[in-house]
Amino acid sequence: MSRFIRADLDAVKEYVPGEQPKDMRYVKLNTNESPFPPSPKVTEAVTKAAKTLNLYSDPELTALTAMTAKTYGVDAECLLMTNGSDEILNFAFCAFGSKNAPFVFPSLTYGFYPVFAELYGIPYVKIPLKSDFSIDVNDYRNVGANIAIANPNAPTGKILSVKDIETILSSNREHVVVIDEAYIDFGGESCIKLINKYDNLLVTRTFSKSFSLAGARLGFGAGDRELIKDLKKIKYSTNPYNVNSLTDAAGRAALEDYEYYMNNCSVIAKNRDFCAEELKKRGFFVTDSKANFLFASHLKLSGREYYLKLKERGVLVRYFGSTGAENFVRITVGTEEQMNTLLYETDKILAGE
Amino acid sequence: MSRFIRADLDAVKEYVPGEQPKDMRYVKLNTNESPFPPSPKVTEAVTKAAKTLNLYSDPELTALTAMTAKTYGVDAECLLMTNGSDEILNFAFCAFGSKNAPFVFPSLTYGFYPVFAELYGIPYVKIPLKSDFSIDVNDYRNVGANIAIANPNAPTGKILSVKDIETILSSNREHVVVIDEAYIDFGGESCIKLINKYDNLLVTRTFSKSFSLAGARLGFGAGDRELIKDLKKIKYSTNPYNVNSLTDAAGRAALEDYEYYMNNCSVIAKNRDFCAEELKKRGFFVTDSKANFLFASHLKLSGREYYLKLKERGVLVRYFGSTGAENFVRITVGTEEQMNTLLYETDKILAGE
Repeated sequence: MSRFIRADLDAVKEYVPGEQPKDMRYVKLNTNESPFPPSPKVTEAVTKAAKTLNLYSDPELTALTAMTAKTYGVDAECLLMTNGSDEILNFAFCAFGSKNAPFVFPSLTYGFYPVFAELYGIPYVKIPLKSDFSIDVNDYRNVGANIAIANPNAPTGKILSVKDIETILSSNREHVVVIDEAYIDFGGESCIKLINKYDNLLVTRTFSKSFSLAGARLGFGAGDRELIKDLKKIKYSTNPYNVNSLTDAAGRAALEDYEYYMNNCSVIAKNRDFCAEELKKRGFFVTDSKANFLFASHLKLSGREYYLKLKERGVLVRYFGSTGAENFVRITVGTEEQMNTLLYETDKILAGE
Repeated sequence: MSRFIRADLDAVKEYVPGEQPKDMRYVKLNTNESPFPPSPKVTEAVTKAAKTLNLYSDPELTALTAMTAKTYGVDAECLLMTNGSDEILNFAFCAFGSKNAPFVFPSLTYGFYPVFAELYGIPYVKIPLKSDFSIDVNDYRNVGANIAIANPNAPTGKILSVKDIETILSSNREHVVVIDEAYIDFGGESCIKLINKYDNLLVTRTFSKSFSLAGARLGFGAGDRELIKDLKKIKYSTNPYNVNSLTDAAGRAALEDYEYYMNNCSVIAKNRDFCAEELKKRGFFVTDSKANFLFASHLKLSGREYYLKLKERGVLVRYFGSTGAENFVRITVGTEEQMNTLLYETDKILAGE
């Protein structure tokens, strides 16, 4: 830390991304990446875009926004494309949070929400989950604050119904409700259409998981056009060319192959449900996940121990050690082969080998 | 604007990027892009990287940072790679500016500085330029505030010597001095080596202009390692994967072809000096630019008129209309052919055709 840093930044604890180890090749089940490569159309489009990189990208991302609007059945004016969904979340905390406009979110959720809040000096309250790790909708009625909910929630994978989300939206009309749908394509029902009914709703999405574009950084926010205008203000006050030409091209090509990606999501959902059953047979407690990961614990094996032993054996999962989740690991769902490797190594660990 | 927006954001006036018109093909001399395409190595590297986009990029950008460090003769710990140089500037204002830590910058300079300041509620003072549009170093001695200076300055193209910058650095040891070297490769002397001598110096650079990567969004900051740690705190509190895999690959490939790009810069500098002389012959006042643009005005033609008439004729230049520059346009320097087109159309405009 230098002597020049803003005093209040001292206390901000930055987000820690999942490990990207370089020491050996792992079966990498720790950052919720898709095991499926992007479609060949993506490579083609990116190669073509690389030839004119000397020119700036379209700051308005007109073509990509139009395609996204068409895909999700919303108006283009209700969308803002961003450099990953982290960026749209960052914009939302920056635009709608302040000392007088606090945020609430679940006690166990995406670890970035409190980081944004601390960065901007926004007071926040963490609302505990129920003992089965689900969100109690009643806790979010008339909370008098902005709300951020990941749906499905991370790292639990548990989902709220669209009806539940409507309950939250309608009882908090004077505050923004951010529904972070990073994992919605793996079996949940999106509430994106509700943006036309509730002007306090912001839905955030990412191309990182279901569209196999984690390395490209593409996300977006969908909401009432006035809400989107506010978020555009942050974009144009920080980084107008936030999404570069290569990512723009990759995103458009991915949307053209929508069916390919949605089919991949079905395969992942199938592998998830199979793996969850197998883990349960081995004595694991596994939450009912609708995302591309499993949240699991075992009575005879601490979360930390399981994580470390898997790592020794070349399988990387995510261990958070957060309060309430000390005993859990989050396992990204990959191919059937990867899941079988996980189960095989888990058997050996449980057998004390 | 929605009713949810933070009250103080209302007054923030976002940055307006240069036009990217879609109505016809222009000789585009308005956003300081390079007329030269990226080297074939860039296309190759990007194509390869596209195949593994399902995986996250390296958040630490270890390989790219090491190559950049080697190219500029500084330690890797003294560098932070960012999503364009706008992002490193944004991080700097966010980390070092506050209600109690104001910024000063020239009255005529990169239009983004006041935008960042307003976004973060940082008081700022614009220090007037001298009548010849140069920066008076004496105005920046012991200013008691953080300082941002574009060198060469935009849109004037005028440069400060490394000695002048040392004068500013040494008389402001308790404040951060940001030297924005976006245009330094076109004929200026970089002060990047001074980061080892002055812990209050942050040098910012971009790959957009001299490395023909405007569409890829890549920039970096160089400074004392403690200063860089502060800026990393902002990165990891907003967008840890700020530079995506495609841009990472493009940047590394560009650095491998360093000579190709530096040669392009020499050609552009030659075209600039030729075009400046020709404009002077036609009665223009042209500042002594060391950047890839010219800042020009004519007694018999207002800046706005010249801009509009050139646009009608298919040549796009930038008109700001800022106080003190009402009568000027900024002309990006492209190929010799593009410069000849500009001169040809200028002759017609001056002849009243």
